[in-house]
Amino acid sequence: MVYPLPFDELEAFMAALFESIGVPPEDARTCADVLITSDKRGIDSHGVGRLKPIYYDRIVHQKIQQPVTQFEIVRDQAATAVVDGHHGMGMVIGKRCMQMAIEKARTYGLGMVVARNSTHYGFAAYYPMMACRAGMIGLSGTNARPSIAPTFGVENMLGTNPLVFAIPTDEEFPLTNDYATSIIQRGKIEQYDREGKACPPGLVIDRQGQTKTDSAQVLKDLVSGEAALTPLGGIGEETAGYKGYGFATVVEVLSAALQQGNFLKQLSGIGEDGKPRPYGLGHFFMAIDIEHFCDLAAFQKTTGDILRELRHSQKAPGAERIYTPGEKEYLAWLERKDKGAPVDEALQKQLVTMRDEQGLKQFRFPFEKP
Amino acid sequence: MVYPLPFDELEAFMAALFESIGVPPEDARTCADVLITSDKRGIDSHGVGRLKPIYYDRIVHQKIQQPVTQFEIVRDQAATAVVDGHHGMGMVIGKRCMQMAIEKARTYGLGMVVARNSTHYGFAAYYPMMACRAGMIGLSGTNARPSIAPTFGVENMLGTNPLVFAIPTDEEFPLTNDYATSIIQRGKIEQYDREGKACPPGLVIDRQGQTKTDSAQVLKDLVSGEAALTPLGGIGEETAGYKGYGFATVVEVLSAALQQGNFLKQLSGIGEDGKPRPYGLGHFFMAIDIEHFCDLAAFQKTTGDILRELRHSQKAPGAERIYTPGEKEYLAWLERKDKGAPVDEALQKQLVTMRDEQGLKQFRFPFEKP
Repeated sequence: MVYPLPFDELEAFMAALFESIGVPPEDARTCADVLITSDKRGIDSHGVGRLKPIYYDRIVHQKIQQPVTQFEIVRDQAATAVVDGHHGMGMVIGKRCMQMAIEKARTYGLGMVVARNSTHYGFAAYYPMMACRAGMIGLSGTNARPSIAPTFGVENMLGTNPLVFAIPTDEEFPLTNDYATSIIQRGKIEQYDREGKACPPGLVIDRQGQTKTDSAQVLKDLVSGEAALTPLGGIGEETAGYKGYGFATVVEVLSAALQQGNFLKQLSGIGEDGKPRPYGLGHFFMAIDIEHFCDLAAFQKTTGDILRELRHSQKAPGAERIYTPGEKEYLAWLERKDKGAPVDEALQKQLVTMRDEQGLKQFRFPFEKP
Repeated sequence: MVYPLPFDELEAFMAALFESIGVPPEDARTCADVLITSDKRGIDSHGVGRLKPIYYDRIVHQKIQQPVTQFEIVRDQAATAVVDGHHGMGMVIGKRCMQMAIEKARTYGLGMVVARNSTHYGFAAYYPMMACRAGMIGLSGTNARPSIAPTFGVENMLGTNPLVFAIPTDEEFPLTNDYATSIIQRGKIEQYDREGKACPPGLVIDRQGQTKTDSAQVLKDLVSGEAALTPLGGIGEETAGYKGYGFATVVEVLSAALQQGNFLKQLSGIGEDGKPRPYGLGHFFMAIDIEHFCDLAAFQKTTGDILRELRHSQKAPGAERIYTPGEKEYLAWLERKDKGAPVDEALQKQLVTMRDEQGLKQFRFPFEKP
């Protein structure tokens, strides 16, 4: 049974768990905040559901990620910097990099920081949204494990490489484009699988160049490399799949080349000996201080006007509403805020396992029998 | 009959024509260079084919564009600037804005310039490619006449709003993502129409929410507003059309809100009296100086390595090769450089009309009977 767990309880548990495995207290709170913020926005694919496989297991069991983040500023110039994260906590690296970009933008109007030797930094919009709170436009991207096949190719080469913008508005929530450059991500296919649905055609390509739709089989084939995700725009050129492929390529370059780090197949997380090894991910973070161009309130109003005009334009017959980027995440928050995050049985087991392994006896979950 | 016209002849004619209608000599050469560079790259939709309808007619007949560009720097701070183009020549405005961004990036690492009251600036990659020649990453975008319908909408609201990157490599040509955020542009539908082909399904949506495929009818309906282009990713959400829609929205905001200019329906080019009026387009230009992050040659090699690995990955059965972004444009140049630009009969007539209207008797085209 899916059980809603209050956000504050879940966040406190995550922070305590990170701390129990060696993450310093303030960093542990940062990591918990990144994950819970994703859950609050309804993006379950990047929240507490990833706590065990992506963070806990990699630190505790695979030992390919460092709980103590050695944040080394390799190069720091006017509006730019390069950081080495030494395989520490991606969210801590991400937050500190974006803070630096924001400070630089305050001074120069623009700031950009790139990170090398990082690890999974959670949902990418977290960092651009920090810029919004500072009255700035934020931009971020990251490379990732090879998943997307190039146009006319069938091999998983590029990560799902999100290209993410967040922009302040005069509304209750910022404009956020939190998009992988593939059509969908693995998390969505897992959802199709749980619901017993086929994956729509065109979203996954196999080594024979055919689309695959059997969700359970797709999940296996993506791991083995027998199948790959298709870029935004789809297979081939007729519906402009080369554009999603091109954006994924640009994100790969911006993430890897400015910091001279790993790219493409080097990001498999598997060493030549077949054993797990640090991913060595790269990210980029950019902040644009609006006040260097125009009045912030005027900017926010123009942006809000654009969004409102889009929403109020003519709907397709049968469509209830037109959403603007980031609106669904805000609606998810309104829906969830008094209930909490939905925790299914598989996730309940993971939470109990981690708690027991770390002896965090002070936490007892409402789904556990008394 | 389609006649290939040597690039240097065509460029000289365009420069002379621009000069004859009041564009100062240096600016006329800039405008001709932007257009001819598009033709050289095989992007016929943005080259000499637009000389008459988009530039000549708007200056000479509609009188909604100024041949003399009053380039006013409204605000100039460290890494940022705002420019007012006063409805002058978009290519002149674009080139000067990107030059400013490059100079700022040389000093601070980053530079960003936004323009208001501009006009059509040609193919968007021209400006980011200027950054590449300076050893920098370039980024540009522009808003445009309303064409794209939002996800779940049917009304043409957003321009084809390109989001364009150009990145230096160690190869013969830079990585360029010169992409409208719609699946296709009007120019491609014109091509389908000329070839007597239907427009593939999913690329155009009508007011009833249905896709339209009759190319000739689509071209009329796009003008009347009875049909709209769909965003990259297609109709609805299943293939992630909301991502193309989101990118188009971000480009609209970056183009309009930082310079407090026109947006969406305000960009129709038609006044309340039903007569043509200046579009008041907005653009943004960004330069990122690579040497502020790392060694330029090392960066170029990493980028080149990424592109080469993509090209050499496993091809789909039947696919001859995997292209990387910008490669097809380079191949078009190799194919065309000794021949020139293909000039069809409709375009031949336009060239003759403009020449005769301006009395440029020194030009005689090879397709004219002796």
